Amino acid sequence: MAGNSFGTKFRLTTFGESHGEAIGGIIDGCPSNIVLDQAFIQAELNRRKPGQSKLVTQRKEADEVVFLSGIFEGKTLGTPIAFQIQNNNSKAADYDLLKDAFRPSHADYVYQQKYKHRDYRGGGRSSARETTARVVGGAIAKQLINPIEITAYVSSVGTISVNKKYTDLQLDLAESNDVRCPDPVIAQQMEQLILDTKKKGDTVGGIVTCVIKNVPIGLGEPVFDRLEANLAKAMLSINACKGFSFGSGFEGTKMFGSEHNDYYNEDESTKTNFSGGIQGGISNGMDIYFDVAFKPVATLLQPQEMLTTKGTLEIIKGKGRHDACVVPRAVVIVEAMAALVLADFMI
Amino acid sequence: MAGNSFGTKFRLTTFGESHGEAIGGIIDGCPSNIVLDQAFIQAELNRRKPGQSKLVTQRKEADEVVFLSGIFEGKTLGTPIAFQIQNNNSKAADYDLLKDAFRPSHADYVYQQKYKHRDYRGGGRSSARETTARVVGGAIAKQLINPIEITAYVSSVGTISVNKKYTDLQLDLAESNDVRCPDPVIAQQMEQLILDTKKKGDTVGGIVTCVIKNVPIGLGEPVFDRLEANLAKAMLSINACKGFSFGSGFEGTKMFGSEHNDYYNEDESTKTNFSGGIQGGISNGMDIYFDVAFKPVATLLQPQEMLTTKGTLEIIKGKGRHDACVVPRAVVIVEAMAALVLADFMI
Amino acid sequence: MAGNSFGTKFRLTTFGESHGEAIGGIIDGCPSNIVLDQAFIQAELNRRKPGQSKLVTQRKEADEVVFLSGIFEGKTLGTPIAFQIQNNNSKAADYDLLKDAFRPSHADYVYQQKYKHRDYRGGGRSSARETTARVVGGAIAKQLINPIEITAYVSSVGTISVNKKYTDLQLDLAESNDVRCPDPVIAQQMEQLILDTKKKGDTVGGIVTCVIKNVPIGLGEPVFDRLEANLAKAMLSINACKGFSFGSGFEGTKMFGSEHNDYYNEDESTKTNFSGGIQGGISNGMDIYFDVAFKPVATLLQPQEMLTTKGTLEIIKGKGRHDACVVPRAVVIVEAMAALVLADFMI
Amino acid sequence: MAGNSFGTKFRLTTFGESHGEAIGGIIDGCPSNIVLDQAFIQAELNRRKPGQSKLVTQRKEADEVVFLSGIFEGKTLGTPIAFQIQNNNSKAADYDLLKDAFRPSHADYVYQQKYKHRDYRGGGRSSARETTARVVGGAIAKQLINPIEITAYVSSVGTISVNKKYTDLQLDLAESNDVRCPDPVIAQQMEQLILDTKKKGDTVGGIVTCVIKNVPIGLGEPVFDRLEANLAKAMLSINACKGFSFGSGFEGTKMFGSEHNDYYNEDESTKTNFSGGIQGGISNGMDIYFDVAFKPVATLLQPQEMLTTKGTLEIIKGKGRHDACVVPRAVVIVEAMAALVLADFMI
Repeated sequence: MAGNSFGTKFRLTTFGESHGEAIGGIIDGCPSNIVLDQAFIQAELNRRKPGQSKLVTQRKEADEVVFLSGIFEGKTLGTPIAFQIQNNNSKAADYDLLKDAFRPSHADYVYQQKYKHRDYRGGGRSSARETTARVVGGAIAKQLINPIEITAYVSSVGTISVNKKYTDLQLDLAESNDVRCPDPVIAQQMEQLILDTKKKGDTVGGIVTCVIKNVPIGLGEPVFDRLEANLAKAMLSINACKGFSFGSGFEGTKMFGSEHNDYYNEDESTKTNFSGGIQGGISNGMDIYFDVAFKPVATLLQPQEMLTTKGTLEIIKGKGRHDACVVPRAVVIVEAMAALVLADFMI
Repeated sequence: MAGNSFGTKFRLTTFGESHGEAIGGIIDGCPSNIVLDQAFIQAELNRRKPGQSKLVTQRKEADEVVFLSGIFEGKTLGTPIAFQIQNNNSKAADYDLLKDAFRPSHADYVYQQKYKHRDYRGGGRSSARETTARVVGGAIAKQLINPIEITAYVSSVGTISVNKKYTDLQLDLAESNDVRCPDPVIAQQMEQLILDTKKKGDTVGGIVTCVIKNVPIGLGEPVFDRLEANLAKAMLSINACKGFSFGSGFEGTKMFGSEHNDYYNEDESTKTNFSGGIQGGISNGMDIYFDVAFKPVATLLQPQEMLTTKGTLEIIKGKGRHDACVVPRAVVIVEAMAALVLADFMI
Repeated sequence: MAGNSFGTKFRLTTFGESHGEAIGGIIDGCPSNIVLDQAFIQAELNRRKPGQSKLVTQRKEADEVVFLSGIFEGKTLGTPIAFQIQNNNSKAADYDLLKDAFRPSHADYVYQQKYKHRDYRGGGRSSARETTARVVGGAIAKQLINPIEITAYVSSVGTISVNKKYTDLQLDLAESNDVRCPDPVIAQQMEQLILDTKKKGDTVGGIVTCVIKNVPIGLGEPVFDRLEANLAKAMLSINACKGFSFGSGFEGTKMFGSEHNDYYNEDESTKTNFSGGIQGGISNGMDIYFDVAFKPVATLLQPQEMLTTKGTLEIIKGKGRHDACVVPRAVVIVEAMAALVLADFMI
Repeated sequence: MAGNSFGTKFRLTTFGESHGEAIGGIIDGCPSNIVLDQAFIQAELNRRKPGQSKLVTQRKEADEVVFLSGIFEGKTLGTPIAFQIQNNNSKAADYDLLKDAFRPSHADYVYQQKYKHRDYRGGGRSSARETTARVVGGAIAKQLINPIEITAYVSSVGTISVNKKYTDLQLDLAESNDVRCPDPVIAQQMEQLILDTKKKGDTVGGIVTCVIKNVPIGLGEPVFDRLEANLAKAMLSINACKGFSFGSGFEGTKMFGSEHNDYYNEDESTKTNFSGGIQGGISNGMDIYFDVAFKPVATLLQPQEMLTTKGTLEIIKGKGRHDACVVPRAVVIVEAMAALVLADFMI
């Protein structure tokens, strides 16, 4: 069953294995006659790119996006926008010893079982490298959903978390540090934790929070295609994602209705926003905010017991270049996926 | 945009307003020549039905499902299965005073803004009564996904929660009490909390945990149609749902990779199951388990300030029949949606 | 694979077997706040209804459509519109002798092979009775596509055909005779042919021509979802349909480009219209016109050799109530399907 | 609305403008672990390629397909297969004078109206060059639908037509001449007609007939996704296509049921095959055969009156490289689209 497309009216279809020729995609449904800011698209890719800071994997990729269609004289044609990013820095040899071994908590085993044939190099299709295509799609979507503003940031790494609500933070500080946390003090602690973890060849999880402002009323369809349902699907489709909650989230389950209800102001805004900007599956014009949980990366740069294709258990030391913590880079993916969801409802 | 269908190969399309003629749906893609256990379908509806216990709304609905097509001589034809449930006990008059008022944290306001016309009686399409159609769809799906077993239960109500993992519980005890919690002691505390809350005309939230056993390896598609992504969408499409997490979930974000990784046994099972039975978007044969957060119901049976269509704020006392806590009945919806997700991958 | 839905944004899903409980469907994606003319919907059903004239089957069906959802106070809610038509006059006994026999050129055999279980009564799902649901969907679609006007008529029955182009006919005369041909002289010949054919227990084919006026420029998507591609699919999905052509059609293949090209007038209309109102998959504002071929109905009311489930060939005389020629009633179905196609592009 | 994908389970999405960077696509849903014959894919592209014979456009394109993903060690991975074909021989300057003119019966005008921005070079997205991507998709599909055999051929050019049924022809002779007609005598006449037409700077239409053998019983879904409905959509989605008919087609409308019915043999085959291998929307195991009508190409290499963007009419002489008759090359596209339809039902 085809499963590599996202969206109905604004639809991104992606392709590419980690160490194949290229990663890329096709965006179908983009309106015509729109001046695309290609520098912005590249800038978004650069935000996601490996090797940017000492926190993240040192895989060196130019990650330069090339557009093959759908744009003429700088403006969209209304036809499919195809794009690709070459895989240059493919140290496939790093993965040779994983050819016959299944790393714990990784997709290796299930891919082998499901497909009977897999590209073992760098995780193949299951690699987070696939998310570059999402970033391109998201960067185009962001240009279509004016005046909506999407800002994601790291709200926790391991047990270190920002203890302020987003409304008490200066969100644009997130991009001022490598960990992408808008609380500079906490950011430093997070950074230290990631570096310490990395040194041990270990990894650690974290949470990304996303805030969407200036949302028009009425986005989302009732019943199955609720705004929050499509956001949830979008987020859980990201590698290593373990959970999604919006508005009051899991904490809201502990509240009484009389505390939780968002009473109206006369201007039709609400006094509180436990609803997280969505009621009955439809945006109500208040800020949308949600949390996305990411597990610690499965690939460790330390010896681990793996299952081999021969059915034995063997201690193997992981190679390759991997993040010790995905959340700093996941920030960009979360924003991209949110933009894709919104564009699909708005076009 | 049409948004009332769920699934691709096994697709449920639903219809119906709370106080309209009927609630129902069409299941398209059900395989042919299958003996359907119609008594089981009705039994599932009865599990969801209002008026079953003192914990839930006293709206009396027979909730008898009638099949209109797709079944002949007790066996499926492979053609669409249409079904409907009459709305008998529609006390629409209860809602007259809500004709011109928008309840806080309810869908009233956004429906009015989006559609410019709404059926204000009992929430119209946004009513949880819509979920009866999901239960029918789920009850059919459950019959197609042998040998998979899906069991959901209430794991928290307000601040009272089961402190054991599902593996330390006797899950079939869940159906032995009104609150559907498999820990009988905790169940009684939950029940008391719901009754106390109800007495005050208030409501309270909670969490449903769902466990899926005997899952074949290989369900789910990589990238966008991951098993967890489709489960997340399914759950967040349920009224009042605020979050979804699977396996280690939000807690897993606090862990290190070396703790979190699920090491293999020689029989290809894993020693731990932080992955929650899904790796790389694909089932690995271990148990799938996930949590679904539900907010406190927005409709309170106490005076609340509402926004009126005239733009004023007025204190209005809610009428109608509403649950003080949705989770006991949500258990059935969660199972149904999980079954729909699985059937769509398995057929 | 689910195959009982048509359309993406304006989507009709249908259900029902000929002698089951009911025929009906769900329309998802209908805009809200539209006053629906329900009398018009019933009038369209009456145009299709059996037993209207001596030309068509005498099955007596009230064919009264009942709406179950999606309409409140006479206006659409933007939620799914469910509807059903009871099957009252089901002489299922007529079909008992077909329980174990496969009629030639009928769906009996392939349904048995594909599904291993079939409702043999009146053709089950393969009955043209299924098209009632299309007429309801089409009658709603017609109300959404103002100012477009769709008019279909019978242009041939057997070897008798209207020899004028649609532009030389007074199209509204089509509804003035039982055969629905706008040329009254030819209509009478067609009628005589159908009656003669019926007397022999035989059937005869024919062609329906459809003309669509007042089409806005720009409907249709390039490449796969061209306007003519979706029209072709719509028409070939009608029972007994054998072909579709638009504009110059098969005759156009005999022409040279210099004859066939439609040169522009200064007002951007074209001097000729061999293009049939569609260029590059997109409407150009000129009239759209197309032909739809229908074979003679397979069920004859005369003895025919049939294949039995025992693998023998036996002479069996068909019973049941069947049209000797489908085109007079197919006119209504062709219009309905065209309306569904257009609504899906326009909403 | 996204419209550049074909198929549900086996889905081809295409991209590319005639004089853009590249033409290509993504195939999603291809099963894993299949050895792909890449030489066969290239051979199919070569069959479609311009410049092969004196009959067709002399645009010189290498048309070498490059695969970017989805194939590893020669076998499919089950992940998306992305491919592209560079546009090398783009004489864009040929089209400069068409920048501000709309050719008659071409997509220029409607693209401008619909999109407000168009790539006027060589027809942009509306160019038949887009069909290269379909050929790649079809060539992969053909490898998945064993033992089905698809053979298309030219059955008429202008008024010259093969007067034999496909069953009386030696189909493999079609590839022995440039016009792709299996009747060598008629082929020569067709060839002469095309050359004469070309000399005048004119174009001519024609018909492609397609025969599908060894079809398993049961392909197709009843009601909207009938096998013939999907074939019709597939064919009408090809540039310049004006009509589709299968089995007895338009001629069948002139017959009586007693003549047209296909009576069974004891082996469950039928004595005749007016049904064209499809009954009730489902394949019955007999040969499928259908006709596809193509109009004369709109672009003439002679002076023609065109509408300009200034609203005037001007005589302009077309440049560029165009076929005088599309059907010899359309044979390959028809086969490809048929393969895509079948693969979508079979996978």
